[in-house]
Amino acid sequence: MTFARRCLSALLALSLTTPLSTPALAQREADPLAAVDPFIGTGGEGHTFPGAVAPFGMVQLSPDTDTTCVIRDCYSHAAGYRYEDPTMQGFSHTHFSGAGHSDLGDFLLMPAIGTVDAVKLEPGDAKQPGSGYRSRFSHRNEQATPGYYSVQLDDAHVRAELTAGARVGVHRYTFRSGDEAHLILDLRSSLYNYPGKTLWSSIRLRPDGTITGSRQTRGWAPDRKLFFAMRFSRPLTNHAFVSTETDVTYKGFQGPGRGSDRLAERSGRALVGRLDFGKLDKPLEVTVAISSVDEDGAVANLKAESGGFDAVRNATTGAWKQALGVLDVDGDAAMRKNVMTALYHSLIAPSVTSDVDGRWRGPDNQVHRAEGYTQRSTFSLWDTFRAEHPLLTLVQPAEVNSEIIRSLIASQQVSPDGILPVWQFQGRETWTMIGYHAVPVIADAYLKGIRGFDATQALAAMIKSATYAPYGGLADLPVLHYIPIDHEPEAASKTVEYAYDDWTIAQMARAMGRDDVATWFDARSGYWRNTFDPKTGFVRARKADGSFREPFDPTAINYGSDYTEGNAWQYSWFVPQDQAALFDAMGGDQAAVTKLDQMFDYDNSKLDYSHAEDIAGLIGQYIHGNEPSHHVAYLYDHAGQPWRTQYRLTQIVNSQFKPTPDGLAGNDDLGQMSAWLVFTALGFYPVTPGSLEYAIGRPFVRRAALDLPNGKRFTIVADNFGQSRPYIGAVMLNGRPLERSYLTHAEIMAGGELRFAMSAEPNYKWATDKHARPFSASVKR
Amino acid sequence: MTFARRCLSALLALSLTTPLSTPALAQREADPLAAVDPFIGTGGEGHTFPGAVAPFGMVQLSPDTDTTCVIRDCYSHAAGYRYEDPTMQGFSHTHFSGAGHSDLGDFLLMPAIGTVDAVKLEPGDAKQPGSGYRSRFSHRNEQATPGYYSVQLDDAHVRAELTAGARVGVHRYTFRSGDEAHLILDLRSSLYNYPGKTLWSSIRLRPDGTITGSRQTRGWAPDRKLFFAMRFSRPLTNHAFVSTETDVTYKGFQGPGRGSDRLAERSGRALVGRLDFGKLDKPLEVTVAISSVDEDGAVANLKAESGGFDAVRNATTGAWKQALGVLDVDGDAAMRKNVMTALYHSLIAPSVTSDVDGRWRGPDNQVHRAEGYTQRSTFSLWDTFRAEHPLLTLVQPAEVNSEIIRSLIASQQVSPDGILPVWQFQGRETWTMIGYHAVPVIADAYLKGIRGFDATQALAAMIKSATYAPYGGLADLPVLHYIPIDHEPEAASKTVEYAYDDWTIAQMARAMGRDDVATWFDARSGYWRNTFDPKTGFVRARKADGSFREPFDPTAINYGSDYTEGNAWQYSWFVPQDQAALFDAMGGDQAAVTKLDQMFDYDNSKLDYSHAEDIAGLIGQYIHGNEPSHHVAYLYDHAGQPWRTQYRLTQIVNSQFKPTPDGLAGNDDLGQMSAWLVFTALGFYPVTPGSLEYAIGRPFVRRAALDLPNGKRFTIVADNFGQSRPYIGAVMLNGRPLERSYLTHAEIMAGGELRFAMSAEPNYKWATDKHARPFSASVKR
Repeated sequence: MTFARRCLSALLALSLTTPLSTPALAQREADPLAAVDPFIGTGGEGHTFPGAVAPFGMVQLSPDTDTTCVIRDCYSHAAGYRYEDPTMQGFSHTHFSGAGHSDLGDFLLMPAIGTVDAVKLEPGDAKQPGSGYRSRFSHRNEQATPGYYSVQLDDAHVRAELTAGARVGVHRYTFRSGDEAHLILDLRSSLYNYPGKTLWSSIRLRPDGTITGSRQTRGWAPDRKLFFAMRFSRPLTNHAFVSTETDVTYKGFQGPGRGSDRLAERSGRALVGRLDFGKLDKPLEVTVAISSVDEDGAVANLKAESGGFDAVRNATTGAWKQALGVLDVDGDAAMRKNVMTALYHSLIAPSVTSDVDGRWRGPDNQVHRAEGYTQRSTFSLWDTFRAEHPLLTLVQPAEVNSEIIRSLIASQQVSPDGILPVWQFQGRETWTMIGYHAVPVIADAYLKGIRGFDATQALAAMIKSATYAPYGGLADLPVLHYIPIDHEPEAASKTVEYAYDDWTIAQMARAMGRDDVATWFDARSGYWRNTFDPKTGFVRARKADGSFREPFDPTAINYGSDYTEGNAWQYSWFVPQDQAALFDAMGGDQAAVTKLDQMFDYDNSKLDYSHAEDIAGLIGQYIHGNEPSHHVAYLYDHAGQPWRTQYRLTQIVNSQFKPTPDGLAGNDDLGQMSAWLVFTALGFYPVTPGSLEYAIGRPFVRRAALDLPNGKRFTIVADNFGQSRPYIGAVMLNGRPLERSYLTHAEIMAGGELRFAMSAEPNYKWATDKHARPFSASVKR
Repeated sequence: MTFARRCLSALLALSLTTPLSTPALAQREADPLAAVDPFIGTGGEGHTFPGAVAPFGMVQLSPDTDTTCVIRDCYSHAAGYRYEDPTMQGFSHTHFSGAGHSDLGDFLLMPAIGTVDAVKLEPGDAKQPGSGYRSRFSHRNEQATPGYYSVQLDDAHVRAELTAGARVGVHRYTFRSGDEAHLILDLRSSLYNYPGKTLWSSIRLRPDGTITGSRQTRGWAPDRKLFFAMRFSRPLTNHAFVSTETDVTYKGFQGPGRGSDRLAERSGRALVGRLDFGKLDKPLEVTVAISSVDEDGAVANLKAESGGFDAVRNATTGAWKQALGVLDVDGDAAMRKNVMTALYHSLIAPSVTSDVDGRWRGPDNQVHRAEGYTQRSTFSLWDTFRAEHPLLTLVQPAEVNSEIIRSLIASQQVSPDGILPVWQFQGRETWTMIGYHAVPVIADAYLKGIRGFDATQALAAMIKSATYAPYGGLADLPVLHYIPIDHEPEAASKTVEYAYDDWTIAQMARAMGRDDVATWFDARSGYWRNTFDPKTGFVRARKADGSFREPFDPTAINYGSDYTEGNAWQYSWFVPQDQAALFDAMGGDQAAVTKLDQMFDYDNSKLDYSHAEDIAGLIGQYIHGNEPSHHVAYLYDHAGQPWRTQYRLTQIVNSQFKPTPDGLAGNDDLGQMSAWLVFTALGFYPVTPGSLEYAIGRPFVRRAALDLPNGKRFTIVADNFGQSRPYIGAVMLNGRPLERSYLTHAEIMAGGELRFAMSAEPNYKWATDKHARPFSASVKR
């Protein structure tokens, strides 16, 4: 068979089992929220949550089905909720969307009924209904849409509804008439919990009926402080604040005699509150604000959004309509749902972290004030520098992107180490993953013309982050020009990622007229060569003496290996700043294409990666479930064989995305997986953020219209769209043939129409020329 | 023998073995600091510290000889330093003066020498010199005076000097020329330490060379946060911030590869820093500020006192000269040293707790701001309401006493429970000991005319504290009119102490014209009767059913007993608001005198109190080492036999005070033991704070002059003073015979001369009449 026939039959076989085969096309709907299914990714490996959140909201109020696991056993419950669980423990106020490691689940609330003595203060066993305060529920009685979630709690006989504003979550609990109503406030519950995680916590009933409190945890971010303030639509009739801690060497003095549970305040490491409301004739509404600053901050945040359930829900619904309304997608129902849900998931982080008064807690654990902007955190930068942040520059106002950059710089300004965030949430650094990928985020934004931040300060912050000796082996870089594996783990990955990050510094520096800086970092951007092994054709780790570390197995995936969450197969493609040079080093374009095909077609039958989290969504050695692979399918473009990119994308989209709870192949990673799909569905992808180019893939929707932040509209049309026509026959930009496999940022931002002629057969001629490939013209090499 | 002869011979026998027998009388010295010996109480049970502190200073910078004990094993090291220890671990910045339980010892610094690899990061074993960073020292090379301490560290070959300002401690280390100089900053070291006490800590090198950090501990006060900022007179050449924690379930991600120790910040539960300075040609000065608010607070406190060692020392020396200079004592050298040291010890707490910008951390663990005054904390109120606070009204400016009251009220205003401090330090409540003894402190001050606080707010705070149901069994008081032992531990002590506190509320309310409140609390002040057993003549605990708890042993001392740190013998005398009524209940004055004598003369040979901390300084069942006994010797006055008070006081002073490290019979208790001696030495004592009366004992100095805060001088003269003349023959006030055994506050504050004619024989006629006894005229019964 020809390449085309072989591939087409394979793709058709695949598509029979996937949602893409659904023949019905959805009507365009006026309400973009209706196309979003927050349950996508709540099963499988997606790690998304179904609960209520406002766009980039500080609060992610969502059900936790089980928080009784211990650390790594909790991988499946990274977002608190798992679709297949039959019971839930309650509703907590903070969740990551799709993280591969976890934390949060703060301040869990759960309704309970019955006499005071009958109220259970432990969640109980999921397999023994009634053994604790947890309740059974059914998906039949469960509903989720952006900003709203509801479920019937079968054991508590309570209908629970959740919504969320910028800094509050609002609960509405409808108890059966005649039931004694209580709430459990469990400060012990947490995601990725373990004995000792809660360093301290407190709960306090204030004279005005507000309950405030705090929790300080040693989780993913050590010494994370979070405060809350909650108000109720009905007065408390009584309360008990109970400490359940045991086996304590020394507790200090134990309060004032026997009345401790009734005190207005309790602190300790294992607190649970029982809040009594008596019999209610109306639903009980609970508004909960959080703050990473202090209780006063939480109280102020509460006051700022105190309108009650419906008011907060309406405001958030409006915000989502605006945020999601920028993209209008016309495709089959499944793909439309996949893409709109992906857009939704890409608008959850980076989350607002400053309080309504502007105060925020920084990486120095001190309190700062954002003047004239909103500080944001939850930066999963190793993931999101790739497509999530580039997507935000297209779908969010420039002000939001500008605030993100300001937030990164503000964090660097107060960082004890003087560097930009690595993996930060609620202002706290986790030191997770590698690189200094705030750098490409800033450079990409700057080069796209986003302003509103101090570029000189930004460049200084980028340089500091790239040269801070104690971080990630950087002390060796100026000497060896690579990171040596005998000094620093995951050295191969670090060397290549630093080189790319450095290239983006050079790009921005040149645009700012700082050729001195550009020259320096241009040189560093070539250091990837020093960790490339021409003999094997793989990126490999070298020791300080210059030798490559042995033994070498390009399929091995281990923590602490030469690579970060991957192996030589995935990491050998990471030279986005100069893929052509990489291909040259590999022996030329055809050798690279052969190697790419080997990667996708690799026979894994003798490999076992069950020990490795994040390794999911495998197509041979291509791992769609994790980020190092995300740009790889587009690299055929760079080798002059774009039809192979189109083929691989079809293969990936058909096999790795479904509009179902288990519909994500891997962690959504704070929107990166979703942003990949949004871009890919539209037909292009930012392989090299900072280059102002998008590699062209193929569209997966019949038509899409993107309302750009500058007020213009960019429309993508796929003529002849259909399952049996996965290839691009031709591309027209604004009515003129586009004879290259990339699009520039300026072309998109100008508005207009990108029209694809879909084809059953590959076009072996289109965009094969050196100058027609991505990254061939617009950026200095 | 007559009473007089029997007693005199006993007293003379005693005095042969005590410092009172020293014949030489000291010259009055211009410098009151020279008479102070900060080592008094650093051995034995005194629990004082020898280091540097300014009057009421936030910082108590003092050597810790051993902090490697665990909680209750640390009783002997409650103040960090023990005189008999041969080595010291370093110098930490916070210490209680004489507490019976402990905490603090924050931010220990210790010099070290040698190469980086040779510097030890563990304190090592006291018995194995060189096994750690601790050093041997000798008292020969040690010096202490108010505000200054120095010692030669024999192993480190460093001369260490300490001084302290209001909110800073300053260290001066003179290294040998040619030695490589380092400092160890050990955030693990603590008083009353135990595994898990440090909830979290952090250390950070700022770009300007300041080191800041924090520690959060779960000690006596749970969740106590303290921050520091330190600057050095010489630049750091290098540093290592090391985490020594082991056996951690989950640490989060472990920082940026191998460079963690060199990072600018480290946080964790077991941190130690090594600070390198290279070879120094000048002494190294380190100024350390603390703050209970945040690092910014510590930095601001540092800036406010940044003049260096000599400047801070000079300022503090001046402050001590002023504070100690109000009392001029002419007696024998030993007694002068005892008394002046006691005055020094009574001027250490309550400590300043607000930062230089007025911010302070309250019992709600939130940050507040003191406007126009300085917030104070370290309130050991069960101890200090007795004599320490009354003494401060005589020796400190009205403004200071006013600030203390404002601080108590400010604390109540932000208390989660809405009540006044119980045992508070650095703004944090420990719930230690019983009662609501901030109440008599406020009432006593108010009735003495001290103003500058909102009296209405104060009275409300007092009432709230006396009626807060969850506290100390108070829920039962309005119903049963006593605290029942089957509901609440230590019920007998609580009932009698509440009754006294309530009486002081009534006194203040009446003075404010609030007769409604006065009537209510007058009634409650009689509730002591409900826990008095006429059959045995003892205060005893009753159960809710009205019966006295059995079995009853008036000599038993146990935790959780009917009594607080004592037994029926000590607690049956606590009706300071109506001793006459108590004596009536006991069967009349003579019965009371007989019982008092039985107490003092009790044969303890068959008793063992070694299990009980705080039980020290026994004279029969009189226990001078603990507070319940402190007023008891004066009670003979109330029974019309003042010569017996004079006898017992002589017995107590001669046996329980020495000008030596082991010279205190029991814990100084934040100045209460010392205040007892200051008053007693002058010849009078505030048996009933709030009554504006002082019971007259006998003077233990030849002459004393007290410069009162109103500018007047009150002089005490003891004619015929001498060991063999322990009795008062006559008393003259301003040249007129004083025919009563009490003195009024107004009489003292008017200035003048109180002249005692000392006598070998008792005067059986003086002040025997009912109306000549304390509390017989001036206060409503």
